Amino acid sequence: MLSENRITLFETTGFPNPARIRAAIAEKSALNDVDFVEIDVMNLEHRTDQFYAMNPMGTVPVLRTAEGEFISESTAITEYIDAFFAGPSLTGTTPLERGLIHMMQRRAESMVLDAVATYFHHATQGLGPLIEKYQCSEWGNHQKQTALSGLSYFNEHLNEHSFVAADTFSMADITLFYGLAFAEFSGLNIPAELTSLIAWREEMAKRPCFSNQ
Amino acid sequence: MLSENRITLFETTGFPNPARIRAAIAEKSALNDVDFVEIDVMNLEHRTDQFYAMNPMGTVPVLRTAEGEFISESTAITEYIDAFFAGPSLTGTTPLERGLIHMMQRRAESMVLDAVATYFHHATQGLGPLIEKYQCSEWGNHQKQTALSGLSYFNEHLNEHSFVAADTFSMADITLFYGLAFAEFSGLNIPAELTSLIAWREEMAKRPCFSNQ
Ligand SMILES: N[C@@H](CCC(=O)N[C@@H](CS)C(=O)NCC(=O)O)C(=O)O
Ligand SMILES: N[C@@H](CCC(=O)N[C@@H](CS)C(=O)NCC(=O)O)C(=O)O
Repeated sequence: MLSENRITLFETTGFPNPARIRAAIAEKSALNDVDFVEIDVMNLEHRTDQFYAMNPMGTVPVLRTAEGEFISESTAITEYIDAFFAGPSLTGTTPLERGLIHMMQRRAESMVLDAVATYFHHATQGLGPLIEKYQCSEWGNHQKQTALSGLSYFNEHLNEHSFVAADTFSMADITLFYGLAFAEFSGLNIPAELTSLIAWREEMAKRPCFSNQ
Repeated sequence: MLSENRITLFETTGFPNPARIRAAIAEKSALNDVDFVEIDVMNLEHRTDQFYAMNPMGTVPVLRTAEGEFISESTAITEYIDAFFAGPSLTGTTPLERGLIHMMQRRAESMVLDAVATYFHHATQGLGPLIEKYQCSEWGNHQKQTALSGLSYFNEHLNEHSFVAADTFSMADITLFYGLAFAEFSGLNIPAELTSLIAWREEMAKRPCFSNQ
């Protein structure tokens, strides 16, 4: 039974999008205020009627809010968590910060995390034949090139900045961090010449939100 | 010459993502507070060094903020505009509204507007051979199916709600509205049995932000 007014995160350990939400909750020092429920993606628990009732898109993570509503899409869940809990802002406070953080967040998704995911699910074995019912390997390989351009783009940006957006730690750093982890998991290694990207990542890895998971 | 502290929108008339920003500015009653500059996409003005300096992704819309920074990605630009100008909120004020609006906004992009765009650019002639340098028609046709599922999903949602998110007008309505327009432009007609979606659209079309453009 889920307790009434507790926030609950439905997640799958080791998967990049749920990890983004864990990191956001950790940055808000709110890990003790949230319940965690494991969804067994490898056994298709995310493709049951019960799960579709929470998220018709059939993906993790899903958040059950304090109001009892279900939110999916990692950026949307992060918005909820950031506004709900006290602590340093992950989504920005001024109009300019909000704009820049959402811009870089979207680029970290479309150029890295989501591009890597498409490569992984379409041009490699992905999660295996039970889950990968349709694959378009041409598009998957094209997205691998998108991901490589994305890594170069962020490397150049991080030549001149300590953080991905607005010169402060934000959800955009979290997304890029797990984008790199997912790239390596998928066999797409970070080119050694992207030294600013690699240095940024080493710095990030020291943050408790990433190292204590 | 751009005036110093004026906000400037770089847009292309008739294109769906720039239209989202015009509608957001209109909802904030701020059309007179923004300068508009036309970018000639058909003649590749968005693929010049000057344009890439504003947006390395090479897409419209781009906003020059009051602070003189450049923001791209329509959701990010909408966040800036919503926070900068007074008037009814387009992105939500409570944590729950923010979460729900960002969730439905992302679904309106990934299931409709962006899926239609991929169909248009990859499985039709798109904007012609000068612009469509790489096409993957298999993926484009697959995204057409995603768009059709998306339309059904929103039709079902709008059976029970007057707005796309959080029972109030928001940026998610704007995105779906232009997603439908783009679908029809691409030759993907809205199935006549999606009566709730069609009724919602007729209601939306009466709003000044959509009808006065
Ligand atoms: N856009 C979604 C993506 C979520 C997503 O793709 N999650 C993956 C795990 S990281 C998933 O559920 N995969 C299951 C599947 O593909 O069947 C978000 O931002 O949360
Ligand atoms: N994710 C971007 C998408 C922008 C986009 O794709 N814009 C189109 C016009 S609607 C464009 O610039 N197309 C030019 C091209 O594809 O070359 C956003 O949210 O603004």
